[in-house]
Amino acid sequence: MNYVFVDEIIKRAFAEDFPYGDITSESLIDPCTMLDAALVCKEDGVIAGIEVFERVYALLGDVTCQFFYKDGETIRHNQKIAKITGNAINLLKGERIALNFIQRLSGIASMTRKYTEALSGCHTKLLDTRKTTPGMRYLEKYAVTIGGGVNHRFSLSDGILIKDNHIVAVGGIKPAVEKARSLHGFVRKIEVEVETLEMVKEALEAGADIIMLDNMDIDTMKKAVALIDGRAMTECSGNINFNRLQALNGIGLDFISCGSLTHSYSSLDISLRII
Amino acid sequence: MNYVFVDEIIKRAFAEDFPYGDITSESLIDPCTMLDAALVCKEDGVIAGIEVFERVYALLGDVTCQFFYKDGETIRHNQKIAKITGNAINLLKGERIALNFIQRLSGIASMTRKYTEALSGCHTKLLDTRKTTPGMRYLEKYAVTIGGGVNHRFSLSDGILIKDNHIVAVGGIKPAVEKARSLHGFVRKIEVEVETLEMVKEALEAGADIIMLDNMDIDTMKKAVALIDGRAMTECSGNINFNRLQALNGIGLDFISCGSLTHSYSSLDISLRII
Amino acid sequence: MNYVFVDEIIKRAFAEDFPYGDITSESLIDPCTMLDAALVCKEDGVIAGIEVFERVYALLGDVTCQFFYKDGETIRHNQKIAKITGNAINLLKGERIALNFIQRLSGIASMTRKYTEALSGCHTKLLDTRKTTPGMRYLEKYAVTIGGGVNHRFSLSDGILIKDNHIVAVGGIKPAVEKARSLHGFVRKIEVEVETLEMVKEALEAGADIIMLDNMDIDTMKKAVALIDGRAMTECSGNINFNRLQALNGIGLDFISCGSLTHSYSSLDISLRII
Amino acid sequence: MNYVFVDEIIKRAFAEDFPYGDITSESLIDPCTMLDAALVCKEDGVIAGIEVFERVYALLGDVTCQFFYKDGETIRHNQKIAKITGNAINLLKGERIALNFIQRLSGIASMTRKYTEALSGCHTKLLDTRKTTPGMRYLEKYAVTIGGGVNHRFSLSDGILIKDNHIVAVGGIKPAVEKARSLHGFVRKIEVEVETLEMVKEALEAGADIIMLDNMDIDTMKKAVALIDGRAMTECSGNINFNRLQALNGIGLDFISCGSLTHSYSSLDISLRII
Amino acid sequence: MNYVFVDEIIKRAFAEDFPYGDITSESLIDPCTMLDAALVCKEDGVIAGIEVFERVYALLGDVTCQFFYKDGETIRHNQKIAKITGNAINLLKGERIALNFIQRLSGIASMTRKYTEALSGCHTKLLDTRKTTPGMRYLEKYAVTIGGGVNHRFSLSDGILIKDNHIVAVGGIKPAVEKARSLHGFVRKIEVEVETLEMVKEALEAGADIIMLDNMDIDTMKKAVALIDGRAMTECSGNINFNRLQALNGIGLDFISCGSLTHSYSSLDISLRII
Amino acid sequence: MNYVFVDEIIKRAFAEDFPYGDITSESLIDPCTMLDAALVCKEDGVIAGIEVFERVYALLGDVTCQFFYKDGETIRHNQKIAKITGNAINLLKGERIALNFIQRLSGIASMTRKYTEALSGCHTKLLDTRKTTPGMRYLEKYAVTIGGGVNHRFSLSDGILIKDNHIVAVGGIKPAVEKARSLHGFVRKIEVEVETLEMVKEALEAGADIIMLDNMDIDTMKKAVALIDGRAMTECSGNINFNRLQALNGIGLDFISCGSLTHSYSSLDISLRII
Repeated sequence: MNYVFVDEIIKRAFAEDFPYGDITSESLIDPCTMLDAALVCKEDGVIAGIEVFERVYALLGDVTCQFFYKDGETIRHNQKIAKITGNAINLLKGERIALNFIQRLSGIASMTRKYTEALSGCHTKLLDTRKTTPGMRYLEKYAVTIGGGVNHRFSLSDGILIKDNHIVAVGGIKPAVEKARSLHGFVRKIEVEVETLEMVKEALEAGADIIMLDNMDIDTMKKAVALIDGRAMTECSGNINFNRLQALNGIGLDFISCGSLTHSYSSLDISLRII
Repeated sequence: MNYVFVDEIIKRAFAEDFPYGDITSESLIDPCTMLDAALVCKEDGVIAGIEVFERVYALLGDVTCQFFYKDGETIRHNQKIAKITGNAINLLKGERIALNFIQRLSGIASMTRKYTEALSGCHTKLLDTRKTTPGMRYLEKYAVTIGGGVNHRFSLSDGILIKDNHIVAVGGIKPAVEKARSLHGFVRKIEVEVETLEMVKEALEAGADIIMLDNMDIDTMKKAVALIDGRAMTECSGNINFNRLQALNGIGLDFISCGSLTHSYSSLDISLRII
Repeated sequence: MNYVFVDEIIKRAFAEDFPYGDITSESLIDPCTMLDAALVCKEDGVIAGIEVFERVYALLGDVTCQFFYKDGETIRHNQKIAKITGNAINLLKGERIALNFIQRLSGIASMTRKYTEALSGCHTKLLDTRKTTPGMRYLEKYAVTIGGGVNHRFSLSDGILIKDNHIVAVGGIKPAVEKARSLHGFVRKIEVEVETLEMVKEALEAGADIIMLDNMDIDTMKKAVALIDGRAMTECSGNINFNRLQALNGIGLDFISCGSLTHSYSSLDISLRII
Repeated sequence: MNYVFVDEIIKRAFAEDFPYGDITSESLIDPCTMLDAALVCKEDGVIAGIEVFERVYALLGDVTCQFFYKDGETIRHNQKIAKITGNAINLLKGERIALNFIQRLSGIASMTRKYTEALSGCHTKLLDTRKTTPGMRYLEKYAVTIGGGVNHRFSLSDGILIKDNHIVAVGGIKPAVEKARSLHGFVRKIEVEVETLEMVKEALEAGADIIMLDNMDIDTMKKAVALIDGRAMTECSGNINFNRLQALNGIGLDFISCGSLTHSYSSLDISLRII
Repeated sequence: MNYVFVDEIIKRAFAEDFPYGDITSESLIDPCTMLDAALVCKEDGVIAGIEVFERVYALLGDVTCQFFYKDGETIRHNQKIAKITGNAINLLKGERIALNFIQRLSGIASMTRKYTEALSGCHTKLLDTRKTTPGMRYLEKYAVTIGGGVNHRFSLSDGILIKDNHIVAVGGIKPAVEKARSLHGFVRKIEVEVETLEMVKEALEAGADIIMLDNMDIDTMKKAVALIDGRAMTECSGNINFNRLQALNGIGLDFISCGSLTHSYSSLDISLRII
Repeated sequence: MNYVFVDEIIKRAFAEDFPYGDITSESLIDPCTMLDAALVCKEDGVIAGIEVFERVYALLGDVTCQFFYKDGETIRHNQKIAKITGNAINLLKGERIALNFIQRLSGIASMTRKYTEALSGCHTKLLDTRKTTPGMRYLEKYAVTIGGGVNHRFSLSDGILIKDNHIVAVGGIKPAVEKARSLHGFVRKIEVEVETLEMVKEALEAGADIIMLDNMDIDTMKKAVALIDGRAMTECSGNINFNRLQALNGIGLDFISCGSLTHSYSSLDISLRII
């Protein structure tokens, strides 16, 4: 994990949460007081974000974390994940922020794990999207991989995805693919978003590397997969939830992208029990 | 809304989403192309974050937004919320980020509205918590108020909340309340977290302004409310969901705080339809 | 003390003071040279800001500080406060900045101590204001507490203070207090600024938690205190200096706020004597 | 004035003063309300910092300032300096910060004007020092020039000032001056700090451009000036106050530097009267 | 061009070049003085960076630029490129920075144009590298495209390039390609760096999308191209200069990458002539 | 060297080069793998920037650098400059950035060394200019001194340089010099740019400290030097290259400034050989 950037995110969280200090703890607790705490999971899930949790306390200082699990491991209700020991004021001051990170990242990892299980037995992989919380993309996309998902492009700068408006602007799928390939095709694959079988054909003829089947019903999707027949990678997109994932299991898609992994996850219930 | 800070959040989102530009749109679309789009809601909900949406395009430039609703209004499935017009590259480049903000804030406002309705008919108000996404607290707490909730403290710097460890450190609820009041009691109320009726009594005797009833069962909570009898404000806290809110309706609490409003919300389904 | 934020303030001071290095010391002194220095107070006063002083050298590196006093202790003319030892270039490079901090903070603490002594024998406490140097509020308000003062609100975000224009906007003290309480009254007290006894009555009836008596003569102030009679806390405000503090001693006010503690203090004369 | 940097200073002041908004004004005042205010001086002085004041409101938006004076003009008690008109919330939100800047800068300019008047009739000029408030040096040194003072070096990077430790490190004034000149003497003069007449002679022989007479009594200073006899510029330094300036008037010094201009000034009493 | 990021780069240049203002111009020129200037090219070349030049003055204010050419056009010695008009102080204050940008970017574009001409008549394209000036990569890579080059990956985050150490770490080219593809192969091609024909074969068998022929002599390179025979894209890398480009013309490579485009370019001689 | 600022430059380079991590190394290499590498020079030159190189790895962590030379030493083709050992992922992640710094700074130092040698045997010194890469001025000017050059002013804030427009604005060289001296002449010398012998005379009469002979032919320059005759320092400026430096050797100039040292240098060929 890239501490230089993660530190910036954590420092912004500090600025939000104690611009003038933790007035309760600093008023009431002696600066030399030590405290022990246990990080406990209160529901089953996949842990993710341990390094961020540790980094919160590394930046505050005088608190050490001893984790008994690693990112990606399954945690059960009431399991003790880590032992946190150190200066009482810093331990309490960082508690909420450290939890805000690890609960969210574990929530994403847990949801991703569950969703990938809906695809078990077939070769289809689960992708994330750019529907991430502003400022948290690096961490949220990391959590997706911990849960077993695969990252789609990180940003508009590292993937070519040709949509309707791009096609209209250039005058067709074929010239759009060619122009994109000539400018950015060296290290990047060219993906085209299509909505009909007709467009699938055009995208194939244009030599698209990836064809995104957007909001198609399952029958059309099957026909599209048959039509493409391995000549391009396929991505299915549009309102994917757990039930729809199960329905899509086995129809031959290479990838399914799912926005809700990062835009509608629940935090995993993890808390710090002071001993 | 405070543009100076919101702009910083938006710029970080830009840095995440196009560190080297939108290579697809910049490669394929003529810089002079204009585009019209409609912002459409695809499920019922409460809209929130219009100013942030507009600010994204104000920072990118050459795109204007005309909204037909205001923050806090209820939107129905398929309603057109706004008309977006302007430079095609900037409109597409900002689309995902603008949506990432407005979908999240509307998700929070919609959930808050629903939860406050579970409290209709009684004087109990719904509070948020500090369980917000790092970097997004100002906006997430704003969305809670749009949904009809009330803000708890913004940060560790603007509210006194005395918990177990603080009590132990000072040697009792009474000295803790007194010390906190003498240092920070001028503009701030003193809140004490209690778990038993015994502690309720101590907090009352100590003169706490607010007593937080943490993880109590409903019967105990009723007894606590009766015991307090208006001599302090009451806050109920701990694993609040819609069902529990309904169960708490009418038992006389002043406030109920609910972390899931900001830690486990779903984004409202809003999208941009290019015309 | 919150190093994360203090470090930012110190780094800005570095950027101001040696954007291209300390050209004299770097040109003339061998990088391995060591130096000893004594931090000496050249007038009586209260020391404040030791941690900031130490942090300046922690950021520059290779210099250690051994302080013989703690923040809040009284220092006499010619007393040696600390021993500073380390790399000569860094010691000289940081000297002015480290002094700029500790001299200002000690100046504030010394003035506050003196002013609080004017209130000795009565229960009235001395408050600071928001009249702080831009960028230095956290540190300046800290120095006030070291001198024995109490912090008023830190910012416009953490205290409700209803003034004339707010009253006019809402149509009276009563509706203003009610509206403010309903939106932000959970953790915050509601303070109302008044100028006449008539307004004092209205504020009392409106249920204000704190009544600020602004620019009243002493007779009116006494009547106001009598009228309020403990039903609200009182704050006296407006052009407070040492003489006026003495005159206000004993008339029963709870708090007196004093802008000059942070807007017109003198730096305490402290210097570094190289040995 | 350099808005790019001043804007950064102002934005930090915003972050300090309303991290979560102006909760009083935003709660009670309709966003469309307009307000008129007069900026009034409540004591005689020299105004400085008008552009910073205006810039505060330019960044907040929707407020215009019409000043009737320019930086450097003398203002009398009760004179109306400017008319401020605009959005009520922004006008109130920015009031304290705008005043914090203009009161401090005007305080410095007023003190500098008074001190330069103690030197009237002789050619001696008044210099500032690096004893400025961290983060405010650019503005504080600007205010000194508005009051009629002259800026000493801005930072450790733009002036050579050889002190005791530098001399010891190189082994004498002569080699120190020579080394400094060879490395940084192209655009910079070489200044040497001396404490005795013996050192004055050495500095002259070494070819120093400026000789700083540090903490000398007046008799020695006169001898030093006579000895130097125009072969180098002279700066007198050390605990300069108004009385000492009067005593130094006419003894032939080129410059006198005075730290209290920036480390111990009082804010000028300026306030905003809402109409 | 992405003003949000470019503005940050320009502001850093301002901080470097006038931390305390342009003391010559601000001392000597009346703030109302207007000035006209012509931007003139003093050698033949390709212009690049017009928007950055304009943005420098947009940020300083009160200066307008009228360009007679567009990025990518060829400029001859003594041609007038633009007319710059406006406030004299700002025009002079921004001159050096605006030139520092446009001269560098035009230098890169001119060199790239010349180098691409060495490849005229064959299908081989010229690539840049990550050997860019720290802080300037976005702009330098932009200038390469203006000169007719193609961008290699922008950063370590947007391209997979498997080198020796990666191969050793995984235990062979084949498992390295497979692992990289499974984790990041969705939108990214997999490139493998090879040094021998044996490695070319392994990379082909592993299914590499791009094979980088590193520091091969021309004969080996020809054999490699024949061996690959269109089954992967080819990139030639290592100490490419103009002569070597000419020698590589026509041997069938798809791409040649050249670090000196960004690590060893000369600024184009452009200056501002005040009229 | 000033780590506080250098760290900022390095962190920006990190943000450019791995906004989402080094996806190749992080995917393929075990986080515990160690690596040894040798830093090798592939052409003769002067090394500069060792501290920056080391700082890159200090910020990434877990990599140590052992250098066998110091900044300013001459390195020959194929010499091993340093041994780099540590965590394989961090070593590879930082390689390009560390090299980008040290190659550029060594390129500048090498060019400066060569150019100063063209001036050997005479007292004329070589100056740099403000024609530096935006964001890199501190480091580039440092490299010039390592190569034996002397720094001209760092910025517009630390040197007075009166050019045509300033002269016109004030109405002549004499009043321009006087005004500049009265405002900023305390620690700064006054330099005047001249183009004719007539202007040289005026500058001398005005008492300029430095006279810049801009774009003069060699004969005129000799006459100017004779005319000045030591009464002011001389700087020759304008299109200086190696040949012209040789031609200027011995004609009595004090300084020659050369923009190409920083605007048109080549990176020194240094690479990291993994062992």
